[in-house]
Amino acid sequence: MARLISLVENASPQLREVMAALAPLVSGARIPHVVGLTGSPGVGKSTSTNALVAALRRTGARVGVLAFDPSSPFSGGALLGDRVRMSDHALDDGVFIRSMASRGHLGGLSWAAPQALRVLEVAGCDVVLVETVGVGQSEVEIAGLADTTVVLLAPGMGDGIQAAKAGILEIGDVYVVNKADRDGADQVRRDLRTMLRQSERDSGAAAAASGDARWSAPVLATVASEGTGLDEVAEALAAHRAWLEERGDLVRHRVRRSREEIEAIATTTMRAQWRASGRLAALDDLAEQVARGESDPYAAADLLLADAGTDLTAG
Amino acid sequence: MARLISLVENASPQLREVMAALAPLVSGARIPHVVGLTGSPGVGKSTSTNALVAALRRTGARVGVLAFDPSSPFSGGALLGDRVRMSDHALDDGVFIRSMASRGHLGGLSWAAPQALRVLEVAGCDVVLVETVGVGQSEVEIAGLADTTVVLLAPGMGDGIQAAKAGILEIGDVYVVNKADRDGADQVRRDLRTMLRQSERDSGAAAAASGDARWSAPVLATVASEGTGLDEVAEALAAHRAWLEERGDLVRHRVRRSREEIEAIATTTMRAQWRASGRLAALDDLAEQVARGESDPYAAADLLLADAGTDLTAG
Repeated sequence: MARLISLVENASPQLREVMAALAPLVSGARIPHVVGLTGSPGVGKSTSTNALVAALRRTGARVGVLAFDPSSPFSGGALLGDRVRMSDHALDDGVFIRSMASRGHLGGLSWAAPQALRVLEVAGCDVVLVETVGVGQSEVEIAGLADTTVVLLAPGMGDGIQAAKAGILEIGDVYVVNKADRDGADQVRRDLRTMLRQSERDSGAAAAASGDARWSAPVLATVASEGTGLDEVAEALAAHRAWLEERGDLVRHRVRRSREEIEAIATTTMRAQWRASGRLAALDDLAEQVARGESDPYAAADLLLADAGTDLTAG
Repeated sequence: MARLISLVENASPQLREVMAALAPLVSGARIPHVVGLTGSPGVGKSTSTNALVAALRRTGARVGVLAFDPSSPFSGGALLGDRVRMSDHALDDGVFIRSMASRGHLGGLSWAAPQALRVLEVAGCDVVLVETVGVGQSEVEIAGLADTTVVLLAPGMGDGIQAAKAGILEIGDVYVVNKADRDGADQVRRDLRTMLRQSERDSGAAAAASGDARWSAPVLATVASEGTGLDEVAEALAAHRAWLEERGDLVRHRVRRSREEIEAIATTTMRAQWRASGRLAALDDLAEQVARGESDPYAAADLLLADAGTDLTAG
């Protein structure tokens, strides 16, 4: 499994064959519950993931963990320091943990994550936790990928307006205030509940009109370093999964992931073709012309696409 | 200018003509200094941007501000609360401020930002501050776009390991510890300096071998809410600009931005073509087959590209 995921991480040419070989195995597999975990640096995300894995294992689930590290486009590899804390599960063969480099913005998370998920699906994972560092674009991508998004917060990490600014009120299915033994934790939970209820009221009329039963996101409290409160998080995840399953959303989400996967692969293939052989030099020339104002980016893009179209037909 | 940037934000079909019309004006314009501002929610980014605009205005520079809000793919529009703090500059016609929605991961920052920058360049901005919320993928993109990246930190936002995890040691040209009047600020500066010097030593041998003069990133202190320390930030930005200019990097960066702009436009055009007319339905069918294991994503991507190639040639 680790070797297969390395192929994904390294964008190996062999992936093409591997994914073709895996396809028949997908049909027999149970659809895994893909859970995105997100939150600012410092909220205790790795510790929470570790403790949540333990809680999920107590329910008998096979668990996969994919951690995406946005620093890797620069460092050339994920920092593994936080993985050490996962060593609790090193000898448990019902747990698979992998820290992956997200591959810059060329394909990125949307390219690698669905293929890595496919490997974990075939391997029989019941739940896959997908963890990213930071609040930003990668969270937006995770929210698009996951069935359930868990947003982690901690006291002292910025006030409610900051939370609203970071857009987290719109992506969370389950909220967890970690470090709940610290000052201000109750206040964070109260503020968050108030903001969530307000946000639900704002969009409630539309939902009521469509007859759509809404999910009301719980706001839970944990002390991940002591393992406190994680069973409640696991229960909330199971409840959200059941809610999704009832509505056919688990199946729909898997189709959506496949659609994004296909688009990401097609786009990356396309760009690889542009970059191949003479096209890369042509792009450099075009870029210089655009930078100097001798051409505009749309005209340049048309030239690039016209070339690509020709080559595609020829090949 | 605001209307032109709205066209970018809304991905208007008119952009094609607008960019063609702007191209000749680019050649006469001074290359603007593109400064990316990044940091976790809660570090005081909006307040810092506001105070930095004031400091830059004192040097006589015309200043543009583009704020990208990753929450917008969900909310359909940027939250404007933080823009209120910018009202100091509302009547100053040497300042242009715009909060933009980043358009999900379809094109995203790499599509919109260079075109918005082009508008500001033609309008004669000497400095453009590009602000994003959060630390993550969008920061990686900003670092690729900007000439100079300013990383903002604040005491109490997580320890040094968290900073290293978020990859900020590799993207900053200037570090600013805001809220420097709070407990722990000196410690954050010291830790950061130690980590930066270590990181510089690690990569120093390679740089020395290539004879490349390295930029040593300063670690400054500000209290943005009182306007303290921002003149030093403006000086550090000017110093970094001069350093870049001396090495020809300002010109090179502008070419790099154009290259990414062309690629982003070409990719988005391509994907729009896939999504158009019958192709969208075909993609949905392919996605269902892949999700059920009846096909694999590479085979599906090939079909999508083959179709696209045919249509491109026909068109």
